[in-house]
Amino acid sequence: MHVTIENAGAAIKAAIEKAKAIDTFMCVAVVDSGADLKAFHRMDDAWVGSIDIAIKKAKTAVFFGMPTGEIGKLSQPGGPLFGIEHSNGGLITFPGGLPIVDKDGVMIGAIGVSGSSVDNDHTVATAGAKALGTWELPAHPWRT
Amino acid sequence: MHVTIENAGAAIKAAIEKAKAIDTFMCVAVVDSGADLKAFHRMDDAWVGSIDIAIKKAKTAVFFGMPTGEIGKLSQPGGPLFGIEHSNGGLITFPGGLPIVDKDGVMIGAIGVSGSSVDNDHTVATAGAKALGTWELPAHPWRT
Amino acid sequence: MHVTIENAGAAIKAAIEKAKAIDTFMCVAVVDSGADLKAFHRMDDAWVGSIDIAIKKAKTAVFFGMPTGEIGKLSQPGGPLFGIEHSNGGLITFPGGLPIVDKDGVMIGAIGVSGSSVDNDHTVATAGAKALGTWELPAHPWRT
Amino acid sequence: MHVTIENAGAAIKAAIEKAKAIDTFMCVAVVDSGADLKAFHRMDDAWVGSIDIAIKKAKTAVFFGMPTGEIGKLSQPGGPLFGIEHSNGGLITFPGGLPIVDKDGVMIGAIGVSGSSVDNDHTVATAGAKALGTWELPAHPWRT
Repeated sequence: MHVTIENAGAAIKAAIEKAKAIDTFMCVAVVDSGADLKAFHRMDDAWVGSIDIAIKKAKTAVFFGMPTGEIGKLSQPGGPLFGIEHSNGGLITFPGGLPIVDKDGVMIGAIGVSGSSVDNDHTVATAGAKALGTWELPAHPWRT
Repeated sequence: MHVTIENAGAAIKAAIEKAKAIDTFMCVAVVDSGADLKAFHRMDDAWVGSIDIAIKKAKTAVFFGMPTGEIGKLSQPGGPLFGIEHSNGGLITFPGGLPIVDKDGVMIGAIGVSGSSVDNDHTVATAGAKALGTWELPAHPWRT
Repeated sequence: MHVTIENAGAAIKAAIEKAKAIDTFMCVAVVDSGADLKAFHRMDDAWVGSIDIAIKKAKTAVFFGMPTGEIGKLSQPGGPLFGIEHSNGGLITFPGGLPIVDKDGVMIGAIGVSGSSVDNDHTVATAGAKALGTWELPAHPWRT
Repeated sequence: MHVTIENAGAAIKAAIEKAKAIDTFMCVAVVDSGADLKAFHRMDDAWVGSIDIAIKKAKTAVFFGMPTGEIGKLSQPGGPLFGIEHSNGGLITFPGGLPIVDKDGVMIGAIGVSGSSVDNDHTVATAGAKALGTWELPAHPWRT
């Protein structure tokens, strides 16, 4: 099951409203459950380097069904997933990417945000994901 | 000078309206004059393979300041640009990508469309580009 | 909706039986509707170079919801899709890749076969796809 | 000497049985001694991001003839192989990849597993490798 373009638009709209509310300039990407890009929005004055990061955060979140920051905790030097960023054409494993889970507990896609501090990125991603349900993923197994 | 997100939104809106009017399912990408992604929209039921093609068409159009189909005429076997598709991380040189030129004749970005026949792709891209001005680029040199 | 591993196993089994029946040595790949690899099987003595081709054929077929050979007819020099192979990390556009469509007309994935003549590759891919339904895709739109 | 498809099937079967026994959803890849993919199996509900990781673990294990986790010990910051993950199109150097060594001490391929904790990945890879012999590699040099 995949995020629809209506879903993606609603998530981006909520994310951009939050970005403006906290006075930031963000790139926001939404991917479907196959990690393929559904919609993207770069605010004026957002960093050009954030384009790729926002998209990679969204992909990373859906690749493993968890917030990107959770993966980053495990991929530090000495951690169990050190170096995982080298997979799948490049991952981004700091906060700002969140799975999007619908009311039935199905992961339908993910949102990735980049453009400010990772705290701000996470805040904006959360606003986007919550517009469609919650980013709290149910325990495995889930349908993809 | 770069396309704004308001510009990009208007171009995508016009393109999607045209896509629906001719009963197609399109991916639409808008890049700025630096060939960096500004906004992207994948209609439900559009081909997954069209994501990358729409983005590459937009990039190709702005890379060389001309419609993608014009480059394709020159990149045929025996032509002066044969094999140019191997540059810049991959070009797409058939119709569906157009520079976006504002009222002052400045190329501010480009639009790329993929999802149907190349004629339909071109039609939809034209609708998008015209929402912001015209895709007819003035003679070299131009400001970017 | 995605091909299950049971589906993928059945398609590969049917493909391999056909490959043996016509005395060939094949690589067979099955991807889901998001173009992500589900299962892969390389027969002993199959060409090493066919690994990537089989996978790319399967991806190409699902990217555009049509047999790879149909795309190849359009991507010849002078054709409307000349150079499309440069997209999506590399396409293979000669025969041997087929969408897998279930009884309800939903494209659930694709199969790609490489290792012999393109006629043989197509024959083996057809045997695999038919094990799950038919590779005749209904007219747009279809659910993915 | 290369793993046969019969070998690969037996290794994957044993790995999947173990994966089910410990209630996990795995991707399992088997490569031959040339690091070329022989067989791949993605269980339903396994992470999409694990496809590439399982394949890269198998390749990494055969590239250097040792368990991936052993390489990871050497590639930490300050270690002798820091950054080795940048080679060969991307390595994965945490546990879950093991060489497959036959009864005569010949490395005939490798198995890579991804989809759960690295401990579970390693457990499942071990079950797969042991189906064909042992993953304990004899001292250098060995035949490939």
